[in-house]
Amino acid sequence: MKINRNYDNLVPNYLFAEIAKRTNAYIAAHPDEKVIKLGIGDVTLPLAPVVVEALKKGADELGVKETFKGYPDYEGYAFAREAVSGYYKSFGVTVSPDEIFISDGAKSDTGNIGDIFGAENTVLVTDPVYPVYVDSNIMAGRKIVYAPSTAENGFCAMPDPQVHADIIYLCSPNNPTGAAYSADQLRVWVDYAKANDAIILFDAAYEAFITDDCPRSILSIEGARECAIEFCSLSKTAGFTGTRCGYTVIPKELERDGHNIYKLWYRREATKFNGVSYPVQCAAAAVFSEEGLSQIRENLSYYQENARIIASAMDELGIYYTGGKNSPYIWLRCPDGMGSWEFFDYLLTNAQVVGTPGEGFGDCGKGYFRLTSFGDRDNTIEAVARIKKLLQK
Amino acid sequence: MKINRNYDNLVPNYLFAEIAKRTNAYIAAHPDEKVIKLGIGDVTLPLAPVVVEALKKGADELGVKETFKGYPDYEGYAFAREAVSGYYKSFGVTVSPDEIFISDGAKSDTGNIGDIFGAENTVLVTDPVYPVYVDSNIMAGRKIVYAPSTAENGFCAMPDPQVHADIIYLCSPNNPTGAAYSADQLRVWVDYAKANDAIILFDAAYEAFITDDCPRSILSIEGARECAIEFCSLSKTAGFTGTRCGYTVIPKELERDGHNIYKLWYRREATKFNGVSYPVQCAAAAVFSEEGLSQIRENLSYYQENARIIASAMDELGIYYTGGKNSPYIWLRCPDGMGSWEFFDYLLTNAQVVGTPGEGFGDCGKGYFRLTSFGDRDNTIEAVARIKKLLQK
Repeated sequence: MKINRNYDNLVPNYLFAEIAKRTNAYIAAHPDEKVIKLGIGDVTLPLAPVVVEALKKGADELGVKETFKGYPDYEGYAFAREAVSGYYKSFGVTVSPDEIFISDGAKSDTGNIGDIFGAENTVLVTDPVYPVYVDSNIMAGRKIVYAPSTAENGFCAMPDPQVHADIIYLCSPNNPTGAAYSADQLRVWVDYAKANDAIILFDAAYEAFITDDCPRSILSIEGARECAIEFCSLSKTAGFTGTRCGYTVIPKELERDGHNIYKLWYRREATKFNGVSYPVQCAAAAVFSEEGLSQIRENLSYYQENARIIASAMDELGIYYTGGKNSPYIWLRCPDGMGSWEFFDYLLTNAQVVGTPGEGFGDCGKGYFRLTSFGDRDNTIEAVARIKKLLQK
Repeated sequence: MKINRNYDNLVPNYLFAEIAKRTNAYIAAHPDEKVIKLGIGDVTLPLAPVVVEALKKGADELGVKETFKGYPDYEGYAFAREAVSGYYKSFGVTVSPDEIFISDGAKSDTGNIGDIFGAENTVLVTDPVYPVYVDSNIMAGRKIVYAPSTAENGFCAMPDPQVHADIIYLCSPNNPTGAAYSADQLRVWVDYAKANDAIILFDAAYEAFITDDCPRSILSIEGARECAIEFCSLSKTAGFTGTRCGYTVIPKELERDGHNIYKLWYRREATKFNGVSYPVQCAAAAVFSEEGLSQIRENLSYYQENARIIASAMDELGIYYTGGKNSPYIWLRCPDGMGSWEFFDYLLTNAQVVGTPGEGFGDCGKGYFRLTSFGDRDNTIEAVARIKKLLQK
């Protein structure tokens, strides 16, 4: 019996464990000080009322023989797929319900999608990067190449025509940098993918935070339907991190290597997945109702205002950053040339504020730092005041 | 870009599509006849009241900031794992909450567990077989060997010491044959696994149907903790096919190839999964409460009585079968030497009863047929009366 030896190549990521360790040690040594955590990547506001009602209505239906639901469709209930399709339509993108898979979250699908691709493909990720893209491909034994996101390109990595890739992970607005691609930039990626016979795996998990004209879907770009799969999630859109629902869009015309990609993924899902919980799909559909969209907008606005507050402070301090706009994340250059962990300790010790060292997301994150807008308003305001006091000279 | 070429080796399974096609054609040609479906593998009775309440309470908690839940633990909430641990204890098996992963169903986990094993392993499945075991391993490019389940061994396939396997799928009580292994038989499998340095992947999805002294868990067998992973599901235990929850047990001491298997699977789940919906975990925990166990027992008894009714008819007709006891399935030998599909047509045409041709589950299913107890009581009684009338000579 052999285990999957590719697992030996995984690099343990102690980022959040190390943050917790240092934070807890500080708190233990300074029990009277109030530490504010702006490193959190999870939402904190509750589900919208209409979503809770839909969850409960779905639960009630399961309790009555006449409305009981057994195995769901692998690709999700038609009502849920139609709701997602309608949501796309609301921002001008045409996606048929027949191209949508309801999932238990974008993480599962971005991680599992590799099942349908050969191990010999070369995978491109941008750096810094959401670790799932890297680790799931190391597990599959694929070669990984990195496209650097830097201050020079505004943390919007662009393709190097000299570098070949078969599978391209893009996340826009980006986790962790908060930077969002413009339509022109995405067109360059689409052209690059086509030139390489590659597929773009586009993670749109933060699309609901976009407020300007940056594309909310890569499928709004001409030609993307022939080279892109889109993943999205209700985790950040509607606070579903604990409710678990997302969706994956595979254009019906997407073909590679003589195979229809929708059909391959359907085969994968039919074999290794059994669909998403009925009440959860009811809740997802409720998000995209008129009332739902109005209610989730309140939570999104709350986080967006937190982001604006943090970004304004960076502006005042003259600190370079990306995100803040179009994103719940503020990705900032550590002041005075400090390293990521050096700044972490500096901020914790002198302002009692916890953030996330950028180098935890990749080499290009060295010297950068992530703050998030998912905290409480008062705490965000207080943290920002402390940071300003500390860094203003 | 290369797709995963192993997908080319998948054999399309048209079993249920072909059943639907023939059934629908018959109904269209005979609109006045009442066709009764005893082929269904899905439950039909609603969730227990205490389970619905738990789902709704979980939903309510997500709607209030103070009780809101974000990302769940990858392995599941402690309260859910403790409930599963307590359930094991109720039938005398010691499983620590730290060895349990809450999943979105046994199908996902039996399908995905292969991620942590090398592609060079040889996989043993019994024939007939639940197709997921086969297809998920074809997708990974593994060699598959078959252990035949036949009337000679009571459809309880036993290992051939001459055949080597690294990964062994066992399902008991079995889908599709309904046959359950005795403790003595499982001991033989455990010994075989140890002799081969293999791991048994034990699917206990139907354990709640066991009424005699057949083991409900392979972990009740001495030595199994050093060679077995157990998968279970609430789908059949508590009607969760549409609610989606199961659990996987990996004993902490299980090691292979220099690796701890629990840790490997944790790494897999942390990378490609984000835990099960909070309200669903609340519902799962409610199943294992005293009230929950009492309520689900009513539904199980209903199905068990249906199974008894079908099995009694087979006894009266002198037809060989397995299952009926310890299982919602009755796996019968087609009368008069008919083939599976021949009997399907015969039964549909002459008794207007739909079942499942056994050969859809593997070569050893040829000449066999599956009836299920998940239907309505009155329909089950009527179907059985028709079958008796047709086959009594």
